Amino acid sequence: MGSISGLSLLAVSLFLLMSPGIQGGKILVFPVDGSHWVNMNLLIESLHTRGHEVTVVRTATSWYIKDNAPHYRTITVTLPEAISIEEQDFFVTFLVKMLAIQKEGASLIGFMSFYREMLGALSKIHQQASLLGVEIFENKTLMQSIRDTHFDMVLLDPGLPVGVLVAHELKLPTIFNVRWVTSGEGHFVVAPSPTSYVPTSGNAASDKMTFGQRVKNTFHYILNMCIDKFIVCPHYDKLVARYFGPDVTFYHLLQGADIWLMRVDFVFEFPRPTMPNIVYIGGFQCKPSKPLSSELEEFVQSSGEHGFILMSLGTLVKGLPIEITSEIAAAFAQIPQKVIWRHAGERPNNLGNNTLLVKWMPQNDLLGHSKIKAFVAHGGTNGVYESIYHGVPIIGIPLLFDQFENVLRLETRGAAKVVDATKLTSQNFLEAIQEVLHNPSYKSNMKRLSDLHRDKPAHPLETALFWIEFVMRHKGASHLRTESYKMPWYAYHSVDVICFLLAVLLLLTATIVGSIRFLCSRLCGRRKPKQE
Amino acid sequence: MGSISGLSLLAVSLFLLMSPGIQGGKILVFPVDGSHWVNMNLLIESLHTRGHEVTVVRTATSWYIKDNAPHYRTITVTLPEAISIEEQDFFVTFLVKMLAIQKEGASLIGFMSFYREMLGALSKIHQQASLLGVEIFENKTLMQSIRDTHFDMVLLDPGLPVGVLVAHELKLPTIFNVRWVTSGEGHFVVAPSPTSYVPTSGNAASDKMTFGQRVKNTFHYILNMCIDKFIVCPHYDKLVARYFGPDVTFYHLLQGADIWLMRVDFVFEFPRPTMPNIVYIGGFQCKPSKPLSSELEEFVQSSGEHGFILMSLGTLVKGLPIEITSEIAAAFAQIPQKVIWRHAGERPNNLGNNTLLVKWMPQNDLLGHSKIKAFVAHGGTNGVYESIYHGVPIIGIPLLFDQFENVLRLETRGAAKVVDATKLTSQNFLEAIQEVLHNPSYKSNMKRLSDLHRDKPAHPLETALFWIEFVMRHKGASHLRTESYKMPWYAYHSVDVICFLLAVLLLLTATIVGSIRFLCSRLCGRRKPKQE
Repeated sequence: MGSISGLSLLAVSLFLLMSPGIQGGKILVFPVDGSHWVNMNLLIESLHTRGHEVTVVRTATSWYIKDNAPHYRTITVTLPEAISIEEQDFFVTFLVKMLAIQKEGASLIGFMSFYREMLGALSKIHQQASLLGVEIFENKTLMQSIRDTHFDMVLLDPGLPVGVLVAHELKLPTIFNVRWVTSGEGHFVVAPSPTSYVPTSGNAASDKMTFGQRVKNTFHYILNMCIDKFIVCPHYDKLVARYFGPDVTFYHLLQGADIWLMRVDFVFEFPRPTMPNIVYIGGFQCKPSKPLSSELEEFVQSSGEHGFILMSLGTLVKGLPIEITSEIAAAFAQIPQKVIWRHAGERPNNLGNNTLLVKWMPQNDLLGHSKIKAFVAHGGTNGVYESIYHGVPIIGIPLLFDQFENVLRLETRGAAKVVDATKLTSQNFLEAIQEVLHNPSYKSNMKRLSDLHRDKPAHPLETALFWIEFVMRHKGASHLRTESYKMPWYAYHSVDVICFLLAVLLLLTATIVGSIRFLCSRLCGRRKPKQE
Repeated sequence: MGSISGLSLLAVSLFLLMSPGIQGGKILVFPVDGSHWVNMNLLIESLHTRGHEVTVVRTATSWYIKDNAPHYRTITVTLPEAISIEEQDFFVTFLVKMLAIQKEGASLIGFMSFYREMLGALSKIHQQASLLGVEIFENKTLMQSIRDTHFDMVLLDPGLPVGVLVAHELKLPTIFNVRWVTSGEGHFVVAPSPTSYVPTSGNAASDKMTFGQRVKNTFHYILNMCIDKFIVCPHYDKLVARYFGPDVTFYHLLQGADIWLMRVDFVFEFPRPTMPNIVYIGGFQCKPSKPLSSELEEFVQSSGEHGFILMSLGTLVKGLPIEITSEIAAAFAQIPQKVIWRHAGERPNNLGNNTLLVKWMPQNDLLGHSKIKAFVAHGGTNGVYESIYHGVPIIGIPLLFDQFENVLRLETRGAAKVVDATKLTSQNFLEAIQEVLHNPSYKSNMKRLSDLHRDKPAHPLETALFWIEFVMRHKGASHLRTESYKMPWYAYHSVDVICFLLAVLLLLTATIVGSIRFLCSRLCGRRKPKQE
């Protein structure tokens, strides 16, 4: 009994091709820049191929989102106070500071100051996103032109959720292409998330936690709630109050999306409660590899029986500090494998002959190559899913954000080995590589995850397209969406019912005890006169 | 943008056909008799068609489950004390008693006695099911022959969950074909179910409840838990203690099933939390209608523009008391539509010329006929889904069990009108029919549900087959199944963490208050000597 192959993908494509009358929808997209855009762009390309008209809202200073693309139109908004927060430099500076704090340790004041700076940056990002909202709502001509286009739905990445306000204004159904919402993981906004076995965002823990880990997890949950409430949401609350009045809550708009296309798969995520309108599309960007260029193929083939290792730290952070890259280069120089390293910044001068530095590489084609042995990765979601798809074990060097949680998820399944960037030496990095190369469990565990991941009724991209077109066909998916979030918190958590039932119980007990006391006193009262 | 048609089903079948190497699995099935068997048998037929070898466990007194069928083998177990609880007579007697109590009212003692009788019957059913377990476990020859067959998985209806014990003994992956588990709805065992918006089994309520309804809902939840704990589970606990020792809990075996094929669809069920290993297959029995026999077609065509009405009260209760059927007959006699009535028992003597009584009818073919106007139904799940599939509005006469909740779900969506059997008169029944026939919202609401229900990436039956074969391919689906149910209740609900955090908060407050007091007393202490 083997797994489902490419043939089945053909059948599913056939199935989607056969769905009648779902061409020609008009979709308004609010993306998030950076690696998120890579995902969204892929969805947009597929929607364009299926005959839909896509319009992307971008800012004039957009970094990845191009103005002139054949597969989408754009609405470009110029912000009055464009801040450089989206620049790559910001993340490099941020990383260097963080590594220094983690490596050298910092005073409580130093750490707090760094944390404050980080929250300040988060607030600035959301402030800018909310400014985008103001620019759209205040530009009457633009709003009228959006209205006149008669969009069928809004597709957005709720990492920067200003699109939900526009969708509400236009009374349009909404689909999220989502993993992160405001300051936390998407599930936490829409599905029950018991902190006893669901690790919260920012807390690298598995679904099996000790008491101490559960305390930490709950603490993180409270922290995330506070960040959401006091740092992120106020920017959007202001907009909601301004344009929709006091009866509308930003958080309810967020919770009211029709379909959540969740960039998660359960070979990666721990099993947890979900909702009927959450559709899992983790790994929707994955596809079979194509042949390499002749130069690259020659380099790879020259590795012989040893095979090769790939290294990339993603789109956000091009370069690591030279102290770390030198250690990595030294370790690579000692192995018989060839290495292809996507690298920017200063070139380590101890680079081995086996190591090829490149500015860009066809990552998916290399991960799918028969000679690949391991992937040295930071643990960004895209790379992790590509690695799972191709069954390549990972040596993880997490640097920022969710990368720590991501590689932990693979480590828990025995499919990755994690190295702490702040403690990385050529020696321990070499040991990690040797471990992953020579202990066959890493490869076989990743192969198992790959088999499970690929064995689906439909490719996740097809699933995503199905639900986008479903929402356009039916003007929403309200039958899959609970409205329980509209209840007051005490009603949702049955606090009022519990209090009422306890009160009734108390009253009953009091009545019974009272009656018994009364009877006793009557009986004693009768006896006493006799004694007297 | 129209809905997906039969063409897409072809493509999905093609997709399943293309899945390589998934033929020839061996499946051990523990079904539940009665209407549940209708469902299970359909799954078994499809599994047989796809080349799997199915073995069904039945008792010698089985009512619906035949011993000799071309598509499955059987293991027939003779129970030492076969009780007649499975007989149809039991349900008719039960119904008559219940109708009498509801109609005439009953003293508290009368009601309690009836309720005790009902719980007694429930206990007896589960006792008999557990006896089946004893017979299997004690029969060493049978157990050895089951072992020697090398089954790939166990498929069971956990309404009578003795199969989970056998699956545990054989260390086999388990799939549930489920709506009801022990004494409640399946979700309540495996997914978070906030009573604030999830109506509990036995409580006919929607997902939007008043305070009073929420109190009632919580009360029902506690009641169901008590029934489970004190009436149903003890029968299986005994078996578990006997064969697996004190470290295994029956409830954990139940919660540990790999995949829950849930006979639910969200055009019917209210949106509620779910889990990754719950797969929704509601309406998996539905299929396009076939042409009628010439006699039936002639009768149906004779209805002209008025069309016809179908009436059936399902498999469990063949007949209603004559007082009720006479009222129904009188109402039918007054409408211009033709009526086809699946009827057993005493024939009402006031039957109109337009009404045809039949012992059996091709229900699906009639529901799919272009001339059908409405379906008078008791609200059993099978009939409800067939009605949804064909878009036929319902006049509901719920009689037993979940039928009240089922028709309420359609009434809430404006697709059904409910008549109370205990208060049914020819007049109010006629009014209900007229309402459904002449208010177009019933038809259009049911049509909308039908459109939503049919618009799926795959037919629910194909989905069910996919997951059964998935579990056989991968020897389970542990990556989709949480093991959080193994946590102690206080840890699962974070009671220990909350207490700890409160204690820390208290300690902190006490320390701060104490310090301030100490400082104050020192300051006051310094001042006082001066004054002295």
